[in-house]
Amino acid sequence: MLINQSYSCIPMIVQLDNPKILSDAISIISEIVAEVRIKLNEDGMSIVAVDPANVAMVIFKIPKESFSQYEAGREVWGVNLEDFKKIMKRASTSTSLTLEQEDNQLKISMFDKAKRNFTLSLIDISSEDKSEPQLSFSAEVEMNSQEFSQAIEDCSVVADSGSLIAGNDFFILEGKGSLNSARAEFSSDHIKVSGLGKSKYSLEYLNKFTKAKSISEKVSLKFSDDYPLRIDFAGNRMGIGFILAPRVEND
Amino acid sequence: MLINQSYSCIPMIVQLDNPKILSDAISIISEIVAEVRIKLNEDGMSIVAVDPANVAMVIFKIPKESFSQYEAGREVWGVNLEDFKKIMKRASTSTSLTLEQEDNQLKISMFDKAKRNFTLSLIDISSEDKSEPQLSFSAEVEMNSQEFSQAIEDCSVVADSGSLIAGNDFFILEGKGSLNSARAEFSSDHIKVSGLGKSKYSLEYLNKFTKAKSISEKVSLKFSDDYPLRIDFAGNRMGIGFILAPRVEND
Amino acid sequence: MLINQSYSCIPMIVQLDNPKILSDAISIISEIVAEVRIKLNEDGMSIVAVDPANVAMVIFKIPKESFSQYEAGREVWGVNLEDFKKIMKRASTSTSLTLEQEDNQLKISMFDKAKRNFTLSLIDISSEDKSEPQLSFSAEVEMNSQEFSQAIEDCSVVADSGSLIAGNDFFILEGKGSLNSARAEFSSDHIKVSGLGKSKYSLEYLNKFTKAKSISEKVSLKFSDDYPLRIDFAGNRMGIGFILAPRVEND
Repeated sequence: MLINQSYSCIPMIVQLDNPKILSDAISIISEIVAEVRIKLNEDGMSIVAVDPANVAMVIFKIPKESFSQYEAGREVWGVNLEDFKKIMKRASTSTSLTLEQEDNQLKISMFDKAKRNFTLSLIDISSEDKSEPQLSFSAEVEMNSQEFSQAIEDCSVVADSGSLIAGNDFFILEGKGSLNSARAEFSSDHIKVSGLGKSKYSLEYLNKFTKAKSISEKVSLKFSDDYPLRIDFAGNRMGIGFILAPRVEND
Repeated sequence: MLINQSYSCIPMIVQLDNPKILSDAISIISEIVAEVRIKLNEDGMSIVAVDPANVAMVIFKIPKESFSQYEAGREVWGVNLEDFKKIMKRASTSTSLTLEQEDNQLKISMFDKAKRNFTLSLIDISSEDKSEPQLSFSAEVEMNSQEFSQAIEDCSVVADSGSLIAGNDFFILEGKGSLNSARAEFSSDHIKVSGLGKSKYSLEYLNKFTKAKSISEKVSLKFSDDYPLRIDFAGNRMGIGFILAPRVEND
Repeated sequence: MLINQSYSCIPMIVQLDNPKILSDAISIISEIVAEVRIKLNEDGMSIVAVDPANVAMVIFKIPKESFSQYEAGREVWGVNLEDFKKIMKRASTSTSLTLEQEDNQLKISMFDKAKRNFTLSLIDISSEDKSEPQLSFSAEVEMNSQEFSQAIEDCSVVADSGSLIAGNDFFILEGKGSLNSARAEFSSDHIKVSGLGKSKYSLEYLNKFTKAKSISEKVSLKFSDDYPLRIDFAGNRMGIGFILAPRVEND
C-alpha cells in the first residue's frame, strides 16, 4: 500500500529517532565524495558512490526498519554532501529528524523545543550510476574496529601506504616508509582470520574509512593478492562499506 | 563621601570576587571593538562603544553592588581590549581581582596563592563619546538565550543574514542562502512574544553577540520592521546589550 | 655480568611499564632539539643536548631502576626526535614498551592486545658531544611546578623575556613589555627560597621547559645575577633539567 502511494510521488517522508547516526555517516561519506545520489526504495535508504580519483567506492545503507516512519518509493535525491553535512550536524541534539521531498527541495525538520526546518536544494548529478562490482576474495578478517583503526594510525606515522597480510592464524598490518616502519600483528586467538592474501592500500583512504568505527564495533576485511579491499562496518541500524583499489608495487 | 574623594583622585579602586564574569564580558566586547573607554561613576562600571563599521553598538554595565569593594568617582579608563582581555584571562582561576588606577596605568591584581599583578597602560581614545540612541520598537521577544543562539547558528549554516519575524503568538528566525535555507519557529507557549515586526540582520554580528549567553539564561530582543535590533542579556551581576543596524533588502 | 654482556653488544634491550612518561619527555625535548644521542650505560638512559641557537641545554635521565628490564651497556642511539616522538605517542595506551637495537635500527615494541612493532632508523649525529657545564649559583628556589608555569604564562602575556628575582624571603617573576607588565610574588611562607640573585631569561624557552610540570610537582630553580638558569623537574621515575643562557639587558 505504502509503496503504491510512493510510486505516485505522494507522502514521501522518512523519520529517524537518532539523527546523530545519519549525521556521522554523512560526515564520513562527505570525505570521499562531494555529491551523491541518495536512493530510497522499498528496502530503505542507500548511497553508492565513487570518489573523483576513481580509487574508492562507498556503499551505505539504512534499512527501512531503522526509520520510525518510512513512506518512500523509488526516489533519488541528488545532494551536495558538504551542505547536507552542515545541516545534519545541527540535528545532533534533536530528538527526531524528518526528511521530506518538496518539489526540487529536501525539507529537513528537527524536533526539539523549537520547530527547526532546513531546506536543501536537490541537484542533478551528472556522473553515471554506479553499482557494486562483483569481487571474489581469498582472505577474510573480522576484528575489533578500534584495534584496526589503531593499527592503520600506527602505519600512518611512518608511511603513506600499508600492507594487509592474512596468513595461517595471523593477520598483519604493515607500513614501510623510507626510514622507519610499523607493524601490528594479530593472532587468530584474538580475531577471526581465514584464507591467505597480501595487498597494499593507501593509508589516506583507510584513515577516512576507519572513522566508521563509531558505527560498528566490528570491521570485516576481504582482500586477495594485489586486489581491491572490501571493508565493512555493519552497525545495528545502518551499514557502511568501502571498496578500495590496491596500490601496486612499482616504486 | 566616596564620590568627593574620587573627584580628588584618591582611593580609586574596585574589587570583584568572581573575575571570570568580567573576563568573559571583556572577551565578547573585544570582538566588536578594539579600544574602549571604561567609565566608572557612582552607579558602577560601564562601557558604551560602536564598532569601526558603525553597524553595532555594545552597552555593558556592572552595577556598583556587584563589586565587593567600589571606591570610584567619575573616572574614565581608555584601554586596548585585546591587551586587557589577555590579562583578564589570566585571572580566571583567581579568587578575587582588584583594579586600581595608578597615574596613567591600570594596576590589575589577582589573589590566589601567589600575589599576581599586571599593569596595563591607559590610552587616549580619539573617537567621540557615544550615548545610547533613542529607539522605539514594535515587537518584543523574551526567550532562552541558548535556544536563540542555536537558531542563529542554524541560520549561519546556510546564509550570512537572518530575519527576525514576530507575529501573533510566534517568533521566527529565518536564514535564506542562494541554495538552502533554515528556519526556527517558536510559539508563545514556549517564549514571550508581543507586537509585530520583521527585520533582517547580519549573522556574523549576531553570532558574536550570542556568546553573551554565558552571562544570562534569558535574552530580550526588540525590533521593528527594517529597524535596528536591541538585544539584551541581563545577568545577575552585570548586563550586556547590543544595538545592531538592520540589513535592508536591496539585493 | 649484564654489563659485560652489553660491552659485547648482545642482548641490548630495555623495557618500560609506563611508556607515557617517556613519550611525554621525548615530546618536551623535541621542542628544544631535532636530533639527539640517547646514551645507555650502567646507570640508565640519558640525553644531554644543546639547542641549535646554543641558548639552552636539556639534561634528561631515566635511572636503570625505572625500567622493568634493563640490559644495556655503553650504547648510543642517534635518533630524529620528531620521528621518535610520533612513534612514542602511539604507545600511550600500551601496557609496556620495549626498545631494542637491531643493527642500525631501533626496534620499538608495544604490548597490548596486538603485537605492535616500529622500527626507527638510527642516525649519525654530527654535533660534538656535550657535557653539563660547571656552574655555581647564588640563589636557589624550590616551588610548585604548576604555580611556576602559571607565573611564566602570566609574563608571556605582556613580554617576551622575564626576570627571576630572589630576595630575602621572597621570589619574584616579572615580565615588562613596552606597554604592559606582569609580576608574580611568592613569599617564603609558601615556597623555599635561599640566597640572592636577579637575572632575565627568554619566556619562549621557559614556556617550553614548564611543559615538564607533568613529570614533577616540584621545580627547582638555581641562578645568579645575569647568569645561566638551571631548572630541574625531578620526577619519581625520571628527571629532566634545563640550562638556559641569560638575556643580558642591553636594549
